Amino acid sequence: MAARADAIAPTRDTPYRRPELLQHFQSVRALSLALAADLSDADSSAQSMPDASPAKWHLAHTSWFFETFILRDHVPAYQLFDERWPFLFNSYYEAEGARMARPSRGLLSRPSLDQVRGYRLHVEAAIAAAWDQLPEAALSLIELGCHHEQQHQELLVTDILHLFAQNPLAPVVWPPEQRRPSVAPDPLRWIAGREGKTEVGHGGKGFAFDNEGPRHPVWLAPHALADRLVTNGEWRAFVEDGGYATASLWLSDGWAWVRENGIEAPAYWRRDADGQWNERFGLDGQGSMDLAAPVRHVSYYEADAFAQWAGARLPTEAEWESAAQGLDSTQGNFLDTPRAVRPLPVTPGEGLRQMFGDVWQWTRSAYLPYPGFRAASGAVGEYNGKFMSGQFVLRGGSCATPRGHSRASYRNFFYPHQRWQFTGVRLAKDL
Amino acid sequence: MAARADAIAPTRDTPYRRPELLQHFQSVRALSLALAADLSDADSSAQSMPDASPAKWHLAHTSWFFETFILRDHVPAYQLFDERWPFLFNSYYEAEGARMARPSRGLLSRPSLDQVRGYRLHVEAAIAAAWDQLPEAALSLIELGCHHEQQHQELLVTDILHLFAQNPLAPVVWPPEQRRPSVAPDPLRWIAGREGKTEVGHGGKGFAFDNEGPRHPVWLAPHALADRLVTNGEWRAFVEDGGYATASLWLSDGWAWVRENGIEAPAYWRRDADGQWNERFGLDGQGSMDLAAPVRHVSYYEADAFAQWAGARLPTEAEWESAAQGLDSTQGNFLDTPRAVRPLPVTPGEGLRQMFGDVWQWTRSAYLPYPGFRAASGAVGEYNGKFMSGQFVLRGGSCATPRGHSRASYRNFFYPHQRWQFTGVRLAKDL
Amino acid sequence: MAARADAIAPTRDTPYRRPELLQHFQSVRALSLALAADLSDADSSAQSMPDASPAKWHLAHTSWFFETFILRDHVPAYQLFDERWPFLFNSYYEAEGARMARPSRGLLSRPSLDQVRGYRLHVEAAIAAAWDQLPEAALSLIELGCHHEQQHQELLVTDILHLFAQNPLAPVVWPPEQRRPSVAPDPLRWIAGREGKTEVGHGGKGFAFDNEGPRHPVWLAPHALADRLVTNGEWRAFVEDGGYATASLWLSDGWAWVRENGIEAPAYWRRDADGQWNERFGLDGQGSMDLAAPVRHVSYYEADAFAQWAGARLPTEAEWESAAQGLDSTQGNFLDTPRAVRPLPVTPGEGLRQMFGDVWQWTRSAYLPYPGFRAASGAVGEYNGKFMSGQFVLRGGSCATPRGHSRASYRNFFYPHQRWQFTGVRLAKDL
Amino acid sequence: MAARADAIAPTRDTPYRRPELLQHFQSVRALSLALAADLSDADSSAQSMPDASPAKWHLAHTSWFFETFILRDHVPAYQLFDERWPFLFNSYYEAEGARMARPSRGLLSRPSLDQVRGYRLHVEAAIAAAWDQLPEAALSLIELGCHHEQQHQELLVTDILHLFAQNPLAPVVWPPEQRRPSVAPDPLRWIAGREGKTEVGHGGKGFAFDNEGPRHPVWLAPHALADRLVTNGEWRAFVEDGGYATASLWLSDGWAWVRENGIEAPAYWRRDADGQWNERFGLDGQGSMDLAAPVRHVSYYEADAFAQWAGARLPTEAEWESAAQGLDSTQGNFLDTPRAVRPLPVTPGEGLRQMFGDVWQWTRSAYLPYPGFRAASGAVGEYNGKFMSGQFVLRGGSCATPRGHSRASYRNFFYPHQRWQFTGVRLAKDL
Repeated sequence: MAARADAIAPTRDTPYRRPELLQHFQSVRALSLALAADLSDADSSAQSMPDASPAKWHLAHTSWFFETFILRDHVPAYQLFDERWPFLFNSYYEAEGARMARPSRGLLSRPSLDQVRGYRLHVEAAIAAAWDQLPEAALSLIELGCHHEQQHQELLVTDILHLFAQNPLAPVVWPPEQRRPSVAPDPLRWIAGREGKTEVGHGGKGFAFDNEGPRHPVWLAPHALADRLVTNGEWRAFVEDGGYATASLWLSDGWAWVRENGIEAPAYWRRDADGQWNERFGLDGQGSMDLAAPVRHVSYYEADAFAQWAGARLPTEAEWESAAQGLDSTQGNFLDTPRAVRPLPVTPGEGLRQMFGDVWQWTRSAYLPYPGFRAASGAVGEYNGKFMSGQFVLRGGSCATPRGHSRASYRNFFYPHQRWQFTGVRLAKDL
Repeated sequence: MAARADAIAPTRDTPYRRPELLQHFQSVRALSLALAADLSDADSSAQSMPDASPAKWHLAHTSWFFETFILRDHVPAYQLFDERWPFLFNSYYEAEGARMARPSRGLLSRPSLDQVRGYRLHVEAAIAAAWDQLPEAALSLIELGCHHEQQHQELLVTDILHLFAQNPLAPVVWPPEQRRPSVAPDPLRWIAGREGKTEVGHGGKGFAFDNEGPRHPVWLAPHALADRLVTNGEWRAFVEDGGYATASLWLSDGWAWVRENGIEAPAYWRRDADGQWNERFGLDGQGSMDLAAPVRHVSYYEADAFAQWAGARLPTEAEWESAAQGLDSTQGNFLDTPRAVRPLPVTPGEGLRQMFGDVWQWTRSAYLPYPGFRAASGAVGEYNGKFMSGQFVLRGGSCATPRGHSRASYRNFFYPHQRWQFTGVRLAKDL
Repeated sequence: MAARADAIAPTRDTPYRRPELLQHFQSVRALSLALAADLSDADSSAQSMPDASPAKWHLAHTSWFFETFILRDHVPAYQLFDERWPFLFNSYYEAEGARMARPSRGLLSRPSLDQVRGYRLHVEAAIAAAWDQLPEAALSLIELGCHHEQQHQELLVTDILHLFAQNPLAPVVWPPEQRRPSVAPDPLRWIAGREGKTEVGHGGKGFAFDNEGPRHPVWLAPHALADRLVTNGEWRAFVEDGGYATASLWLSDGWAWVRENGIEAPAYWRRDADGQWNERFGLDGQGSMDLAAPVRHVSYYEADAFAQWAGARLPTEAEWESAAQGLDSTQGNFLDTPRAVRPLPVTPGEGLRQMFGDVWQWTRSAYLPYPGFRAASGAVGEYNGKFMSGQFVLRGGSCATPRGHSRASYRNFFYPHQRWQFTGVRLAKDL
Repeated sequence: MAARADAIAPTRDTPYRRPELLQHFQSVRALSLALAADLSDADSSAQSMPDASPAKWHLAHTSWFFETFILRDHVPAYQLFDERWPFLFNSYYEAEGARMARPSRGLLSRPSLDQVRGYRLHVEAAIAAAWDQLPEAALSLIELGCHHEQQHQELLVTDILHLFAQNPLAPVVWPPEQRRPSVAPDPLRWIAGREGKTEVGHGGKGFAFDNEGPRHPVWLAPHALADRLVTNGEWRAFVEDGGYATASLWLSDGWAWVRENGIEAPAYWRRDADGQWNERFGLDGQGSMDLAAPVRHVSYYEADAFAQWAGARLPTEAEWESAAQGLDSTQGNFLDTPRAVRPLPVTPGEGLRQMFGDVWQWTRSAYLPYPGFRAASGAVGEYNGKFMSGQFVLRGGSCATPRGHSRASYRNFFYPHQRWQFTGVRLAKDL
């Protein structure tokens, strides 16, 4: 389990706690390596679509981040591991110069996975050696780099899932785990949310990305959130009711997407031998669908159409965050160790559940800057602000999100057609 | 000049004023015809890109709207002008059945422009004949149809402009008008906006599209708006400062758009014989650029990059609307008669100017539903709600917007790369 | 009817017969105008696909040819009709400078059809005025220009047909003509061809394009040609036998084309109300299919697959030419006047029939240079040689080919997927 | 070195020599494995473009051929190695059912390279075990399968070269070999070819693909062939003379290809630090260009344009074959063992040289059936005939062709834009 962020970061008047931060750094780095432990050289090199990256690339790119922004910038006389590698493993930082075209990442059969592992060790050793001399500014970048690496851990997992889903052999990295027979959850109940003026956005101590702030007031209309996530069983009723063939339920762009791509179900749903939607592909391979588990791998377009069909709507990100503020964001079905994670049926109970973990929850909020937002300066400032057009916000984290990485103010974002992440739906409605 | 909307529409307890509504209907219809009066059959049939439509199509589609939703639905025994035409002139109403693929509208050399004019007369005559028997519900659709037709009037003008801009002969529909030498405007001044809780959205009497409501509270952070629009002269300074070659100013999608399309200036800017950006193409043909006039034909990506460069930002739609609520939306540089409209330099003075007319003002707000939004029922309900993904809101109206069509709560919307409308920029900043 | 080419052209020692050549020139020019007489301005401006051009463009481009290569080059002090038009109406002559991108020809709503007609008159008058002073070299280009214009006459007809085929209103230019009930033709008979050394290629007097020569020996293997063209009835048997769904009958590229484009019948075949292939669209509008008439509008891929299915093959161009050498190439179902031409059922009889006119006959010969081929020098040398890759030769002419334009050595050529010309099939087999 | 084909194959009245054929089979199979010996799992799994395939796929596909057409069809009770693999490793045999989409071959990170090696051993062992019982028909397919595998050996080499050329690290499989300083060859000399009636096509004993026959007469016009291949030095003169910027030298399709792809030199040519064309990438990595060696990796379009520039033309395949008939096709710079092969400068001497090996020589002949051609029956009949549209014939073999695989009648074929094979130019001219 990842070290808690509030154990390492400075408060207003104190410096970073160096030993704890180092331990956190090493723990995050170790998880990346562990996630790739059972991948072959070829598994780690393939790129199944332009949106995805090879696992090897994730391992190298996260190391490039530390090499560039810590070692190159803050450690005198540091020599680059290989002068040609920054071109290969820079992602999108225009300020850091030219880089390999994204859709061509799968052509890098060299360097090998083992060489990349060597790169990781080299960077980690250099950072450990320089640790005590690193300035506070570098420690702040270490912390940022750890969060950055956790994001790539989630991508590594979902990119491998996408790759294996293209392979007719349906390979798996991790063995399937014992599944208890699951029970249909209780019907949705509506939980009224806060009304009127409330505050959202990160404002306290502890790490947050620049896009989570500043904290600011918003005005919430009367509304309620569903107490749990939408299930596969509920989604299958939507499919069987002709949801994917009913234009009036869909956004215009969504309907075009459905028709151009022949969409008829969530990604990775598979028909059984009788043509019924009873199976799905996952990190544990192909198998029967758990109707009680949250639906996953749906696009915003699908989420919105489902909500229309259900006579409801998606929550706004402020509604979601307002409801999440009192909850413990480290509890839930998150990624702790390398294993075949999957969303789990809701636990019987009362009140809002499944707010953190399981699946990212689409909101109806476009990903835009908060009032007073300013991007961080320098190359790391390219991190978030430049993606603020055309995407929608997701909240909560998923079973592939490293535990401790998400929080109430955390804003994930994807284009409305994307669905290779563990993305699902919580309904909302006006009161 | 178009009849004022509040002169015709019912209040809560009164019916429509039939004579005034008929006059409004006839006046709107007459303007469409007048806008096309000097187009040739070929001019009116060409489609210069999938986003645009032939002028003839606009003339026919707006008539199809009245024929379908008034005559077919509310006038007993009405016979369609031609049973095959609805397939040709339906636009995007899925509920109304199959239709000509949008990018193929330019292949309809038949029916001819004259036949379409005949269609218009036929529909108008049938409506006039049935006028006294039309139920209130039909009158409401008449009013909606007039607003719909005004939208297509603006598209007709901008689509013709786009078509003629592709033609090396640089044709014009209307002769250039006398241009007074213009004077560089005063430097931008910042006008502080309302703070805290305020209300936006349409809530009063008079017509509004469904997407303008419900009226609802929002919370505004401290901010200021520029007192006038950004000018061509200011924009040229941005160009000359390398604005189109500086990745750090741009949204990621915007930068990709710049590179893929070789964008280096607003649409219709032209280099003079010395290669300088001193000319532009407009409804009045190719000529020298008026540096004091508002910049036009910029995309959201460009607007956002310019604001970054200027150390400012774009306004939110709530900020804009809050500032506009006290102003007269019928005053300003709007479309009254067929002529070579163009944005005009700001009038010297104090306070917010150019809020209505001249150019549509990009906001940083994505086009999304307001709290409590419900689409209108039936086919006309497809009008607005289904476009609520991926687009940004523009406010204020332009010199090609029929006078009386816009208002403080009016929400126009386009994709962030689109710029063939008269689109420009008003800056904002945090206080 | 077009003047016969051998009436005008010089033999080795004589000059052109000027009066007859002028008459020929004027007769060719008149036919172009007549073909467009019933087109509207919009009809003549639309471009239904990149392969096609607007009728107006054909009318102007053929005039540009004469203006450029005769008037500009051979008439002192000639002033261009409009200096900007060469950019618009040059087709593909790289040596003649920049030109309008081909797929954008449909955006030229201006100049109008009437202005283009004025251009034609202007050019014709200037040539007539200069006629007696034109050097022999210019007369040779006049002759070439007439043949060039005849090619565009055929394209004008087939491009209009393609445009109207996209229009749900199914418009026609010319009224349908009386159709006699047609009778199923006799079964195919095989006519043995010449064997061993024979000569092909143009070698005599009279005009020929550069690609028709030099005349040269070839060696023909024992073979036979079908005595008539393949009919719609025979093709429908191929369709009903699953021809379009049987991969083994198709070339690899052809099968890919079938699947990507959903091809299931010749272009312009239409299903009747019962879903049967009983109708087709033609210059005379939509109507019942004549099963006895030659099949038309098939691609090379389809022609080759049909031949496979029939246990036969397509002829080589040498086989075809060898058989055609004794026949009168001016007899047959050619274009004489503006009317709704269509291929006709074969006349009962003996021997090779339908060799000229009706439909172009695909050969299995790629379009390549003959031994000793040299392109003509200068801009007109771009005419033929540069298309010698990727295309197949067609022979014989069609009902849309101006009478007198084709001949035994005439080589037409298209890409194997193209089928908007009147293209059909004559079978061949090895003996 | 590969066993000679004429040592194993039957003559009209004798059966195959089984021991020699087995040895040949094993020798061919061993070379494939050896070529991949130094590839990593990732190297062998990547696909750098749709035209190329992963090395692993070549290894598996050639084994699938033997498993399917020998073991499945001729060995009773044979069990497939894995029932799911035929879907993965069928290439284009429609008759053999569904298969992995070609551009997705690079997504098969599993099975691993080692598993594919296991598959190879399994198939080889099963064939060896069944050897004595295999019917003659199966032996004929063994022979065909060996030739098929040799083709894939060449593709494996050129596909790896293409993959590594995309990698900024410029990896190599095999170390560079000692290069002797090369000397500029003598100027081209012209060798007159045979004239009049001559015979081409395979007609004797020994293996040939179906597309090489039947042997048949052709008539050759007076012509001459260059005594050697075009060199890098000669090609660089073409580049420096503006060859790639001179439209009049190019076929129309070729010119479009040049402009759309920004082509300015042969594939794998690289500029040095001063921007000069002095380097190239090859199987031996990036290094200086050998100006005396034959140019390689040029497309048909380039070959044709170069010939135009040189005042010559490309040979026809009949001219080439006629000249090659007396030469020993097993001599020359061919592939014998895994090493960094490259074309070599011509040996000083007289007469036609470099006819076999070094680089494939583009001919101006389209790839079409010979008179009397009939495709082989059954699935293996899909091998050649179905590609007979749109491609051009190449002759002679290359330094990546396994020795013994080519011959005078051998017809290779590629699309005119393709150039990732070792393709070069021999000039011809009319006499």
